Amino acid sequence: MSKNITKRSEDYSKWYNELVVKADLAENSGVRGCMVIKPYGYAIWEKMQAELDKKFKETGHQNAYFPLFIPKSYFSKEASHVDGFAKECAVVTHYRLKTGEDGKTIEVDPEAKLEEELIVRPTSETIIWDTYRKWIESYRDLPILVNQWANVVRWEMRTRLFLRTAEFLWQEGHTAHATEKEAVAEAEQMLDVYADFAENFMAIPVVKGFKTENERFAGAIETYCIEALMQDGKALQAGTSHFLGQNFAKAFDVKFTNQEGKQEYVWATSWGVSTRLMGALVMTHSDDNGLVLPPNLAPIQVVIVPIHKTDEQLEEIREEVKKVTDQFKKLNISFKFDDRTTFKPGWKFNEYELKGVPLRVAIGPKDLENGTFEVARRDTFTKEIVAKDDIVTYVQDMLEEIQSNLFNKAKTYRDSHITEANSFEEFKDLLENKGGFISAHWDGTIETEEKIKDLTKATIRCIPIDRKEEDGICILTGAPSKGRVLFAKAY
Amino acid sequence: MSKNITKRSEDYSKWYNELVVKADLAENSGVRGCMVIKPYGYAIWEKMQAELDKKFKETGHQNAYFPLFIPKSYFSKEASHVDGFAKECAVVTHYRLKTGEDGKTIEVDPEAKLEEELIVRPTSETIIWDTYRKWIESYRDLPILVNQWANVVRWEMRTRLFLRTAEFLWQEGHTAHATEKEAVAEAEQMLDVYADFAENFMAIPVVKGFKTENERFAGAIETYCIEALMQDGKALQAGTSHFLGQNFAKAFDVKFTNQEGKQEYVWATSWGVSTRLMGALVMTHSDDNGLVLPPNLAPIQVVIVPIHKTDEQLEEIREEVKKVTDQFKKLNISFKFDDRTTFKPGWKFNEYELKGVPLRVAIGPKDLENGTFEVARRDTFTKEIVAKDDIVTYVQDMLEEIQSNLFNKAKTYRDSHITEANSFEEFKDLLENKGGFISAHWDGTIETEEKIKDLTKATIRCIPIDRKEEDGICILTGAPSKGRVLFAKAY
Repeated sequence: MSKNITKRSEDYSKWYNELVVKADLAENSGVRGCMVIKPYGYAIWEKMQAELDKKFKETGHQNAYFPLFIPKSYFSKEASHVDGFAKECAVVTHYRLKTGEDGKTIEVDPEAKLEEELIVRPTSETIIWDTYRKWIESYRDLPILVNQWANVVRWEMRTRLFLRTAEFLWQEGHTAHATEKEAVAEAEQMLDVYADFAENFMAIPVVKGFKTENERFAGAIETYCIEALMQDGKALQAGTSHFLGQNFAKAFDVKFTNQEGKQEYVWATSWGVSTRLMGALVMTHSDDNGLVLPPNLAPIQVVIVPIHKTDEQLEEIREEVKKVTDQFKKLNISFKFDDRTTFKPGWKFNEYELKGVPLRVAIGPKDLENGTFEVARRDTFTKEIVAKDDIVTYVQDMLEEIQSNLFNKAKTYRDSHITEANSFEEFKDLLENKGGFISAHWDGTIETEEKIKDLTKATIRCIPIDRKEEDGICILTGAPSKGRVLFAKAY
Repeated sequence: MSKNITKRSEDYSKWYNELVVKADLAENSGVRGCMVIKPYGYAIWEKMQAELDKKFKETGHQNAYFPLFIPKSYFSKEASHVDGFAKECAVVTHYRLKTGEDGKTIEVDPEAKLEEELIVRPTSETIIWDTYRKWIESYRDLPILVNQWANVVRWEMRTRLFLRTAEFLWQEGHTAHATEKEAVAEAEQMLDVYADFAENFMAIPVVKGFKTENERFAGAIETYCIEALMQDGKALQAGTSHFLGQNFAKAFDVKFTNQEGKQEYVWATSWGVSTRLMGALVMTHSDDNGLVLPPNLAPIQVVIVPIHKTDEQLEEIREEVKKVTDQFKKLNISFKFDDRTTFKPGWKFNEYELKGVPLRVAIGPKDLENGTFEVARRDTFTKEIVAKDDIVTYVQDMLEEIQSNLFNKAKTYRDSHITEANSFEEFKDLLENKGGFISAHWDGTIETEEKIKDLTKATIRCIPIDRKEEDGICILTGAPSKGRVLFAKAY
C-alpha cells in the first residue's frame, strides 16, 4: 500500500487535507461545510474530552446542557455580540415539511412558519445568561461554574476539515461571579488549564497572551488566548478564555443581592476549545509518512504485528504476545495485536505508520528463538531489539519518552521561530522567508494593526502575558511602544 | 424549607413536573419545547452515558460524529422513513441575518436563502447511510459498528421535561453487516445491552419485546423494545433496537462485494436511548418527598451532615469525618460533607431527601462521645446508629442493598401490574381501575390495534420475546390468536 500523500515541502495545505482523510480522522459530508468525524478521529477527540473534563471538574466545574436554538431577538440584546456572531448563521424559519404534489418529493410547509426565527447556536452566552437570570438571586447562588459539551454552527464560506467547519464540536464554559476580581481570576485559571492541557497532554507548546481589542471575542472586556505554531510557520489559536465583565448580565438583567443587601450586576467569563485542536495536533507533530500522535492521545499506543510463515509459528507468537498484553492491560497501555492474515506485515507497518501509532512491536520466528521483540518508534523511526523480560518496562518508558520528545521537538521549532523584527522591512522579510511568530513593537492602535494586516496578512496573535516592558517604536508608524507583541500569519 | 410538591396520589403528572424542576434536574427554557438540563440532572445523565458507552465499547462499537444537518432530499429516499420523521422538524432555510432599518433589530437576509433546505436531524439513518456508501466496498469493510452521542430535534407540539421535548440528547448506534443473520443478532444483542443496563444499573425492570408493525420505527423490518412501567400504571418505552433489513442500503445504494465476488446490498441496524430515561428514572423510584436515586446513578451517594453547637465540635466532627471520607475516596464512593453554616441541619436533611441522595450520615456531639454515626436510608426512611469502626463497610453494603431494594420494589410493583384480560369488558375495567400492562389476545391486524387505541387510549406496548404460544381469541373481534400481547396506556 502506497500512502500517496503529498509531501509537506511540496504543498503543506494539500498534505494536511490528504492526511486528515487518509488517516481516517474526518471527511467531508454531503452537507456543505459539515464534516464527518470518523471513529479513529473521534477516539482522539474523546481522549481530549476526557482529560479536559477531568480538569474542569477538578477546578470545581459541573456540566449542564442548554438549548441548541436561540431566539433571534436574544442576539440583539448584547450590541457587540450580534455583529460578531449572529450574522453568518443557520436560521430555522419553519417547523414542518409536507409531501409535494408529485406525492414523492417533500417541501417546506408555508403554513408552518415560526413566529420568531431560531438561530442554531454559534455560541451560547445569550441563552445561558437568559437562564442564569432565573438561577441567581443572592450572593449565595454564586459562583456558578458550568461547562457544556456541544455542537455549534457558524456559517463559514471556506471550510477545511477541523480548522474551519460550519458545524464543529466544542466545550464552552460559562461562569457567573459576585466580583470582578473573582471573574478575572477564573478567566486566567482556565487559560492556565488550557495551556497545561496543550503542553502536557497534547505536547503542543503554546504562548499565553491577551488578544488586542480588535481580535477580542464579541462581548468580551478581555480575551486571553493560547497560540500555537504549526510546522509551516503559521500560528493557530488553540483556545480562548474571556472576561466578559457585566456585559451579558446587563443585557439579560442578571442581578444579585450582595452581602450588604444591595443589588449588583453579575460578573461573567466564558472559555472554549473545539475540534480545531485536532487540526493543531496534526500540524504540530505529523510528517510525510502520516500522523504522529503523542502517546497520551493515541487510540492505539502499541501495535503488535506477528511475522510468521506457519500456523504453528503464529500460535507460538500468540502465546508470547499474550504474556505481554496481559501486563499492558494492567498498566492501561492500549494495544492492538493485529493477527489478520488477510494483510501482509509490510502493509500493516505502513498502515500503522499512517495512523501515527507511537510504538510498533514485531515478533517473528527469530525473535521466538532469541526471546526478543523488535520495537520501532514512530517519532524517530529508530528500532531496537528488546528481550522479552524487559519489553513491558521498555514500552512503558518509551511511551513517556515519545511524549516528551514530541513536546521538546515542537518547542525547539517554535522557540527558533519567535524572531524579533525592528523595522517593517525586516518584518516583511521574516514573514516571507522564515514565518513563525514575529516579535515587534506596535503603537497600540487598531488602525496600525489593520494596516499591517492589509499589507502582509499578518495579525497580532497576542500580547504575551509575560512580555517585558521595553521602550521601542512601532515598526509601521514609528510611534512609541512599551513592549513587543507577537505577529504571525494564522489559521 | 418546605418542599411543596404535589402528592402523587393527588396529581401524578403535576408531581412529576414539579419534582423535575425542584430537584434541579431540568427546566423549561426561553425556547419553546427545549429544556435546560441543570448540573444535577446532567450529572445523572453523565453516569448513564458512561455506563452505556462502556457497554457499547465492550461489544466492539466505536463512537463517531455525523452532521447535525440533513439535506431535505435525503428524506425522500426511504419511503416510509419520510412519513415517520421528516414532517415535524426544524427546517433551516437561510444562512445569514442582517441589521434591520432601525439599526438595532436583526432580521433574516432574504438574499441568503439556501438552495436546498436543511433539516435538523430527527435521527441520522439517512446522513449516515449516505456516508457508509463511501466506507463500504468489500466484505472486508464489514461490519461497521458505530455509535453517536448527539442532540436531535423533533418538533413536538406538547412537550414535557425529559419525556417529550423538541430537542433531546441521545445515542444512536448504526451498524452495517454482510448478512441478515448478523444484523438481526446485532439488533438483539443491543436490546439485551439496554435491558441489562435498565435493570442492573438503573434498577428499572423492563419487558423485552417486539413492536407491532404499526408501532415500528419508520424504515425498520423489526423493532425490538424494552418497556418499563411507571408508578401510575402507565408504560414507558425505554429503548429501541431496529433491524432495518436492506432498506437504507437500497435507498442510499450501499453495496459490498461478498467473498464470492458478487455485489450485495448491506444489512443494517440502528438502536437508541435518550434523555427520556431520566423521566423513567424519576417515575420508577421517586416518592412524595422527592427523588429517590439508585446508588449507581446518584451524583452524591452519601451526604454527611454535621450537627454542632460550637466551632470546637465542628472541628472534632471534621476530624472524624475525614477518616471516613478518606476511605470513601479509595472505594470510589461519592460523598459530600456539607459543613455550610449558612443552613441548619434540618434544612439540609430536607434538601438531600429532595435530591434523592441514597444515604445520609449525621454526626453530633453525642456521636462523638459514643464513637458512632447516625445513618438514614432515603429509600426506606430507616435510621441506624453505626459504630465508627464499622461505618465504611456498612455504607458500602448499604449502597448495594439500596440498589437491589429499589429494583426489587419496582419489580414487585411491575409484576403485580401485568394482568390478563379475557374480554374487552375486563380489559376496559383493568385499564380504568388498575392500570399497568394488560396481557390479552389480539387478532394481529392493524385495524383492531387502532380501534382499541381509539376506544381506550391503550396501545400494544410489545409482543413479549418470551411469550408462550397459547390459542385464544382477540378481545375485540373474537378472531383467533396464537398468543398474548401487552397493552397499556403509555408515555
